[in-house]
Amino acid sequence: MKDYIFVLEMETRDYECDIQGIVNNANYQHYLEATRHKWLQQEGQSFRQWHESGMDVVVAEITMKYKTPLHGQETFLSCLNVRREGPRFIFEQDIYRKADMKLCISASVSTVCMIDGRLTRGDELAAMFAKYL
Amino acid sequence: MKDYIFVLEMETRDYECDIQGIVNNANYQHYLEATRHKWLQQEGQSFRQWHESGMDVVVAEITMKYKTPLHGQETFLSCLNVRREGPRFIFEQDIYRKADMKLCISASVSTVCMIDGRLTRGDELAAMFAKYL
Amino acid sequence: MKDYIFVLEMETRDYECDIQGIVNNANYQHYLEATRHKWLQQEGQSFRQWHESGMDVVVAEITMKYKTPLHGQETFLSCLNVRREGPRFIFEQDIYRKADMKLCISASVSTVCMIDGRLTRGDELAAMFAKYL
Amino acid sequence: MKDYIFVLEMETRDYECDIQGIVNNANYQHYLEATRHKWLQQEGQSFRQWHESGMDVVVAEITMKYKTPLHGQETFLSCLNVRREGPRFIFEQDIYRKADMKLCISASVSTVCMIDGRLTRGDELAAMFAKYL
Repeated sequence: MKDYIFVLEMETRDYECDIQGIVNNANYQHYLEATRHKWLQQEGQSFRQWHESGMDVVVAEITMKYKTPLHGQETFLSCLNVRREGPRFIFEQDIYRKADMKLCISASVSTVCMIDGRLTRGDELAAMFAKYL
Repeated sequence: MKDYIFVLEMETRDYECDIQGIVNNANYQHYLEATRHKWLQQEGQSFRQWHESGMDVVVAEITMKYKTPLHGQETFLSCLNVRREGPRFIFEQDIYRKADMKLCISASVSTVCMIDGRLTRGDELAAMFAKYL
Repeated sequence: MKDYIFVLEMETRDYECDIQGIVNNANYQHYLEATRHKWLQQEGQSFRQWHESGMDVVVAEITMKYKTPLHGQETFLSCLNVRREGPRFIFEQDIYRKADMKLCISASVSTVCMIDGRLTRGDELAAMFAKYL
Repeated sequence: MKDYIFVLEMETRDYECDIQGIVNNANYQHYLEATRHKWLQQEGQSFRQWHESGMDVVVAEITMKYKTPLHGQETFLSCLNVRREGPRFIFEQDIYRKADMKLCISASVSTVCMIDGRLTRGDELAAMFAKYL
């Protein structure tokens, strides 16, 4: 496993699986979002409070590579790194099945920061996360 | 808090909230299902294996009373009791917000056991869970 | 089929089905909510605009009886009646599979009206829907 | 609007929106899947029947570019093209808001065909969809 700045242990739920008996593709996007928000929480930040104060960090582009499917009630590690590319904050997020550390999904999530509905250069966000960038 | 045979600590996720900023009503049903399946897992049983062997425990009726809404990233306790009424296995399930132990939802979930697509009297299930009934 | 004040034709989607190959229980609650909101839209009302103006109609209690499961890509009719009982507005909602008009689910959804976070007697809502009450 | 081999009119539902009042990112993946399955249905094929016969078409990689957010109860056009690249069947899928035909999301979904759990060269699938490839 690579080095990550944040690792969250999570578990799949049966209702997230579809008729193939594996987690439906879209639910991985939920896991990735939950991981980013949990990382923010650890950093003392809150997506909800940001929204209420007029700041929204929104996904501009996401790429997900599906490697190994997860089944119901399986434990996995959801891992995160972040870097800045101009106005974009790019989260590299990988999910590993805990039982054998197989890579399940590898994602790149490119976000931008809006304040009062306008795209910013990202300096406010960069100040918050300076130690990681 | 009443006595329960099973208590699971869970946490809401932001994507489960709607425009009102509170967890969407249907998601509580997901929490309740996840709690039942997690209890089964602790008992050495698996909803998925049951299904593969031809046995399905299905919900016949559910009543949910909404008391206090949960917001994003809140921790809650999902609590469960079970009793039998003839062919029905009734799960009494309550959810409490952990911060102040306020009751969020109180549910009664009435299930029946199907084997190979036919309704049973529930004796197979009763044998598995004899110690709780 | 009984008489209803509103009937909406909908179709299940495969991602709404679980490993049993049938629509997951919680998703019916989504169908019921979507039907109420669609009825509101027809009446020139909007759940979102209500929320923005400080009014929220929230579910206090829901009872759902599951009769016949729906599978993926099946068309169904989602039917609605409403009545008032003091501060409560009770939606009687039934879902029928279109192919054979079998009753799939029968639900009673009891709602109350909050204005600026306080429970009302429901007079504002009653005025909007006088012709149905 | 470009030319597409399949266009499906759909409508967002309020429960698909999050606290920002816009459709949650993961739900677009649901729309894209529902569109592919609906196209299959029109072609006389069924994802569910494929699964039951041992054939699964699974997503290997997805890229989604988010352009304009959809709100609750908005009508949109979900558009699809398909092409083959060796064993991969790539769906180019775009979603337009119907009111002003603004591009909401542009996605590329790369799928492969598994038979009895083994990756195939895709010839079975290519035969089914020869007229589009």
